[in-house]
Amino acid sequence: MSHSTSAIGLDVGGTKIAAVVVNESGDILDQERVATPHADGSAPGTVIADALATAVTTLCERNGLDVVETPVGIGLPGLVRRNGSLAFAPNLQTASGANFPALLLERCGSRHVHMENDGNAAAVAEHAWGAGRGASDFAMITLGTGIGGGLIANGELIRGRNGFGGEVGHMIVEARGIRCNCGKQGCWERYASGSGLGLLTTRAANEGRLPELVRACGGPENVRAEDVTTAAAEGLAEAQAILHEVAWWLALGLSNLVELFDIGTFVISGGLASAAGELLPVATETMVSMIMAAETYSSFEVVPSTLGAHTGALGAALVAMQRSA
Amino acid sequence: MSHSTSAIGLDVGGTKIAAVVVNESGDILDQERVATPHADGSAPGTVIADALATAVTTLCERNGLDVVETPVGIGLPGLVRRNGSLAFAPNLQTASGANFPALLLERCGSRHVHMENDGNAAAVAEHAWGAGRGASDFAMITLGTGIGGGLIANGELIRGRNGFGGEVGHMIVEARGIRCNCGKQGCWERYASGSGLGLLTTRAANEGRLPELVRACGGPENVRAEDVTTAAAEGLAEAQAILHEVAWWLALGLSNLVELFDIGTFVISGGLASAAGELLPVATETMVSMIMAAETYSSFEVVPSTLGAHTGALGAALVAMQRSA
Repeated sequence: MSHSTSAIGLDVGGTKIAAVVVNESGDILDQERVATPHADGSAPGTVIADALATAVTTLCERNGLDVVETPVGIGLPGLVRRNGSLAFAPNLQTASGANFPALLLERCGSRHVHMENDGNAAAVAEHAWGAGRGASDFAMITLGTGIGGGLIANGELIRGRNGFGGEVGHMIVEARGIRCNCGKQGCWERYASGSGLGLLTTRAANEGRLPELVRACGGPENVRAEDVTTAAAEGLAEAQAILHEVAWWLALGLSNLVELFDIGTFVISGGLASAAGELLPVATETMVSMIMAAETYSSFEVVPSTLGAHTGALGAALVAMQRSA
Repeated sequence: MSHSTSAIGLDVGGTKIAAVVVNESGDILDQERVATPHADGSAPGTVIADALATAVTTLCERNGLDVVETPVGIGLPGLVRRNGSLAFAPNLQTASGANFPALLLERCGSRHVHMENDGNAAAVAEHAWGAGRGASDFAMITLGTGIGGGLIANGELIRGRNGFGGEVGHMIVEARGIRCNCGKQGCWERYASGSGLGLLTTRAANEGRLPELVRACGGPENVRAEDVTTAAAEGLAEAQAILHEVAWWLALGLSNLVELFDIGTFVISGGLASAAGELLPVATETMVSMIMAAETYSSFEVVPSTLGAHTGALGAALVAMQRSA
C-alpha cells in the first residue's frame, strides 16, 4: 500500500500520451508528452506499455518518487474491465486486450497501476477539482470526433458491472438513424459531435443552406466543420444555424441524461467545446424544453471544462490515488 | 428513531392504494387495499392523505404496531422531491404538490414517513428481495400504460439531485418521434409500453398486417392491444409479429441503459409483462445486437418481476426502513 501523496496520471490517446505528476490537491507538479506508438506485430499493448513505463520512470526520477509504490493511473479510449484489461478500443487497436497493470509491473516494477476509461477519468477529475466540484449527480461530456463521457451519481462514478458504464455517445437517440462506426444506428455521437457537425455541414452545403460558405470555400464539397465554427464565431447567421442544429442534438442527449439521472451539472470538453459560446446557451435552453416537467427542476448548468487539456491525465491520477488507498 | 423491525408500505396508484406490513426479510405480514379517492376541491393530497392515514392506523392496530414510530413509506406515480413533496403527478392531479409526511403526521401522528417514486420503490424491492437480488447495477422496468422504472448503480438507488432520477420512460429514442403525453416527442414509453402496443396494433391493423384479427374483431378499428397479446400467446404469427415490434423498441431502450450504466439485470413488471414469454426472449436478443462490442459483456438477464403486484408497496416499506434507520 502506498502512502505517497502524489500519483502519476497517463492519458493514452490515438495520437499522443499525456503524463502528469499530480498531488492530492490536483496540482500538476510535472508533465511529459510522447507520441502514441502504433506499428506493431507483437502482443497487445507492448509498445504502448514500453512508452508508458518510460514516462513513469522518467517522471519518478525527476520528482524523487518511488517507482514501485507511486500510484499510476491510465486513462484509455475504450471499454476497460474492472479487472484491469482493455476489452475494446477501436481507435487503439494495438492495445486492445492489453493488461497494462501486468505490463507495467514487468517493465518498471510499478505495483499500483489502475486503468479507467478516459471519459470516466475525466469525469472523476472535473468532479473533484473542476467544474463539477460539489455536484453529487454530474456528467462529463467530451465532444471530439465522437462523444465520450463519464457519469457520477450519488457522488460516485458509474462503472457498471464490467466497468463499461458511461458510454454516453452510443446512446441511440434516433431509431434506425445514421449508421455509427460502432455498427449501430442513430448513436448520439453521430449527431452531436465534431463528426456530427461535419455531417450536418455537408448536408446543409449540398442543400443550399450555406450559400456564403459554399461561395467562399469554392463548392459545397469544400466546406468543412471548422469553416462553420469559425464563420459562426464571426457572426455568419447561416453558419450559426448549423451549430444550432448540433446544439439541438446535444440538447436531446443531455435531456435523456436528466430524465435518467436527474443531473444538474454538465461539463463539456473536447474539440467542439471551442464553439461553446455559440453552442452551449442554445443547447441548455433546448435541453430544458425537452425535459418532462422541467419547471419542477432546479436550474441547470451546462459549462465548459475548467481543467483543460490535462483533464484525462488528472483523472487517471486521481483514480489511482483512490484505488491504491 | 424507530427500532421497529416492521414497516408499512403504501403504493398509491391512479385507481387504488395498496398497503402492506412488511418485516425486514420482505415478508408481507398483513395488507389492505382501498380505492384511490379523487373528487376533491380541497388542498393537494388531503383526501388521499385521509385514506393513507386510515390504512396506516388500521394496519398498526391489527398488528400491534406503534403508529407514531413505525416507518411508513409511500410510493407515488410522479416526481417526488428529496424533501418529501410530490412535485409532479399527471395521473394523480389531486395529490400534486402534497407533502404527505406532514399530512400523515397531522392525521395519525406517524413520525417516520418517507416518499419515493413508485418505480424507484419497486426497484429497491426487487433489488433487495426479488429478481434483482445481488446485482449491484440493476434496472427495474415497469411496462404499464407508460414505462416506469428505477435504476440502481453501485448498489444504490439513483435518486438524482432533486430526487427525480429514473424516469426511463421519458428517454427520447426517436428524435422528433410520436408526441408523448408529457409534451415531448419520441419518448420510449410511446413505443415499448402497453399504449405503445396499442398504437402499433392500430397502425398494423390499418395497414393490413393483421388480417385474421381484423376479421375476427370485425374491423381494423376494433383490434385492441389485448387481442394481440392473446392471439400471440395462442400462436397467431401476425400477432406475434406486432409483439416483436414492441420487443424491438423495448430492446432499444434497454440497450441505451446498458451503454450508460453497464447494467446486467433487467427486471420487467407491469401489464405488458403478461406477454413476457413472447416479448422478453426477442427483446433480449435484439438488445444484445444493439450494444457496442456486446461480445465483451457478460451475459444479460431480462426477466419478469418475482415479487408480483406488491412490488411497489414492498419497496415503499423498505425505503421507509432504510431512511428511518
